[in-house]
Amino acid sequence: MGEVTVTRRLTFSAAHRLHEPALTDDENRELFGLCNSPYGHGHNYALEVAVRGRVDPRTGYVVDLKQLKEIVNTHLVAHLDHRNLNFDVEFLDGINPTTENLVVRSWAILEPLIQPARLLRLRLWETENNYVEYEG
Amino acid sequence: MGEVTVTRRLTFSAAHRLHEPALTDDENRELFGLCNSPYGHGHNYALEVAVRGRVDPRTGYVVDLKQLKEIVNTHLVAHLDHRNLNFDVEFLDGINPTTENLVVRSWAILEPLIQPARLLRLRLWETENNYVEYEG
Amino acid sequence: MGEVTVTRRLTFSAAHRLHEPALTDDENRELFGLCNSPYGHGHNYALEVAVRGRVDPRTGYVVDLKQLKEIVNTHLVAHLDHRNLNFDVEFLDGINPTTENLVVRSWAILEPLIQPARLLRLRLWETENNYVEYEG
Amino acid sequence: MGEVTVTRRLTFSAAHRLHEPALTDDENRELFGLCNSPYGHGHNYALEVAVRGRVDPRTGYVVDLKQLKEIVNTHLVAHLDHRNLNFDVEFLDGINPTTENLVVRSWAILEPLIQPARLLRLRLWETENNYVEYEG
Amino acid sequence: MGEVTVTRRLTFSAAHRLHEPALTDDENRELFGLCNSPYGHGHNYALEVAVRGRVDPRTGYVVDLKQLKEIVNTHLVAHLDHRNLNFDVEFLDGINPTTENLVVRSWAILEPLIQPARLLRLRLWETENNYVEYEG
Amino acid sequence: MGEVTVTRRLTFSAAHRLHEPALTDDENRELFGLCNSPYGHGHNYALEVAVRGRVDPRTGYVVDLKQLKEIVNTHLVAHLDHRNLNFDVEFLDGINPTTENLVVRSWAILEPLIQPARLLRLRLWETENNYVEYEG
Repeated sequence: MGEVTVTRRLTFSAAHRLHEPALTDDENRELFGLCNSPYGHGHNYALEVAVRGRVDPRTGYVVDLKQLKEIVNTHLVAHLDHRNLNFDVEFLDGINPTTENLVVRSWAILEPLIQPARLLRLRLWETENNYVEYEG
Repeated sequence: MGEVTVTRRLTFSAAHRLHEPALTDDENRELFGLCNSPYGHGHNYALEVAVRGRVDPRTGYVVDLKQLKEIVNTHLVAHLDHRNLNFDVEFLDGINPTTENLVVRSWAILEPLIQPARLLRLRLWETENNYVEYEG
Repeated sequence: MGEVTVTRRLTFSAAHRLHEPALTDDENRELFGLCNSPYGHGHNYALEVAVRGRVDPRTGYVVDLKQLKEIVNTHLVAHLDHRNLNFDVEFLDGINPTTENLVVRSWAILEPLIQPARLLRLRLWETENNYVEYEG
Repeated sequence: MGEVTVTRRLTFSAAHRLHEPALTDDENRELFGLCNSPYGHGHNYALEVAVRGRVDPRTGYVVDLKQLKEIVNTHLVAHLDHRNLNFDVEFLDGINPTTENLVVRSWAILEPLIQPARLLRLRLWETENNYVEYEG
Repeated sequence: MGEVTVTRRLTFSAAHRLHEPALTDDENRELFGLCNSPYGHGHNYALEVAVRGRVDPRTGYVVDLKQLKEIVNTHLVAHLDHRNLNFDVEFLDGINPTTENLVVRSWAILEPLIQPARLLRLRLWETENNYVEYEG
Repeated sequence: MGEVTVTRRLTFSAAHRLHEPALTDDENRELFGLCNSPYGHGHNYALEVAVRGRVDPRTGYVVDLKQLKEIVNTHLVAHLDHRNLNFDVEFLDGINPTTENLVVRSWAILEPLIQPARLLRLRLWETENNYVEYEG
């Protein structure tokens, strides 16, 4: 019997401003347009955390989703929800908070915490019309 | 033949912080909790604009939704999208940007512009789990 | 105990072209723009049929939704689904198939068939961004 | 300034079997069909709780949604979630758990708890294709 | 020209209780928490059936979705819809009906019936916040 | 650091009729059933365009989604939206407009335009219940 992938979706609401400190203000405006608006804007993000593995014959689970949800909430979502990604989040310090950069940093946080379960993929929705995926 | 209600949905992404200037910082924290987080957070808002009237026998329309969309975009959504509701929006100046206050101010802007069509209702979604409605 | 409203959602896919025969081709193009495109376009429609009444103490139902669904499918949706609203639908013959006109004709068909249950409202979604409502 | 309606959506998962004890087994099978299946089936329900009132100028809120959510969770959703509506829920004892009956009993529980805020409407989704509404 | 993947989504409503017969009642309560609630609970499941192959130049199809839908409905969904997964489903007899176990058994049923088309993936949603995937 | 996949969703509304010119009318009716209805029907399509690559350290982007959206709109969606896929679309001339054929032709158009970014996958939804995927 092959492996199964289990996915849990969690949501959070955050502000951000796309701004790369290494660039001039003009370059930032040119690159990011409205997303560089000085006081920021925000989104309702939805994060899908996918874990892959054998089904444990004792539990019928790949992983206990209640435990997975608690790990992701405690170590990731609690630091992002109702926060400003440019100012409030230690692991994003100095990072331009694009969805790409956010998903890559989220992986670095979650991957060791979820072991021995194997993190397969993170999918992060920024709006109903765009999302990013990362597999490490 | 009775009247028909026509609704157009539009979306925008904005940052906000719930903070009432007339209250102390402690009172604000107590009242608004995480929503008072100092650097703000944000949402993907969805606004449903409902117009009610007779169907024009010439057009088969209550109102031309292309024109309605342009009015709402130009006079409302363009001022909110990718903005910070606490700092960037003239018609919210000094207003605590709760969803309730936002929908009431949006009505005041849209209602005269849509005439002679009759604005029936605004429904404003802040997240997939909460929304407000206003009928003037 | 007050009345309860029960709603059933059904979907269908149809082609249409907005074109009012009483107008010239230029007037039609001016009024309807892309929606007047000569060979038509189409939509996945979703119709919400709302029936209101007392809860029958014997059944715990306002109306049996299985029966309601069958009536709406047989007498309305089967005539619209995978059809062209300008050519295939007898009750739309000579009618410019705007969403407004479609909802009003649908009411005329359903209202007598559903009696003695009372049709309260039809809501017809044309896209995820616009819908019409009619209460007779 | 008119009143505003604020709505909070909450979800729960429950089993139920449509069965009216006052009827014979044959009558139950005839009336409810598959919904009378002996061991029950189940749904992911979504409940929308709508409260209407003036916007409090101190808070910019009609009602604090965090408090509303806690009341609804503690006094209603916690009794329904991951339960069997035929066996586990005291306030449904002896009641055929149709969506209509469930929404009416939910109103009786929530309406006094939410005062002085005014409960305007409950909308209860049973599947993505049907829902009921009740205004008391 | 490469292969194309075609996916059909179907829904069903079922009750279940997570309970592993090989474990004690205490172990079951500890492991499954609310999901072990004695009388069960339930869900609106959505199953996505993905079939992969070359596009047949005669039909423009990888597979006829009408036929695929009929196979899945007859041999799988009809046995699950409005059923209790612990008591009513022969192919789940003695199986703890986690989403993981359900998707693996569903694969075993569908895979030979769909041949010569090639089943690529099943995705089974249990709620709007969690789903599992299996590729055999 | 591995690659990231970025996806943009766009929508369009179009009419089509499934009809293979190389077959007889009877064969077409037999094969395509209601989808062969002579005057056509239509859908609200949703296209997800997935691009994969390294995150550019200067921008924090894999690709600028504003530019991607403009390319897809100008070269693909503008030719499909509010059109009849059997008559109005040059790149579908003589092609039976199944979702499979539409996604393969869309790939052929988009893939060279998006370079040097790498098109990973197109997912095309025809209704809320079926979609196709193509990776070239």
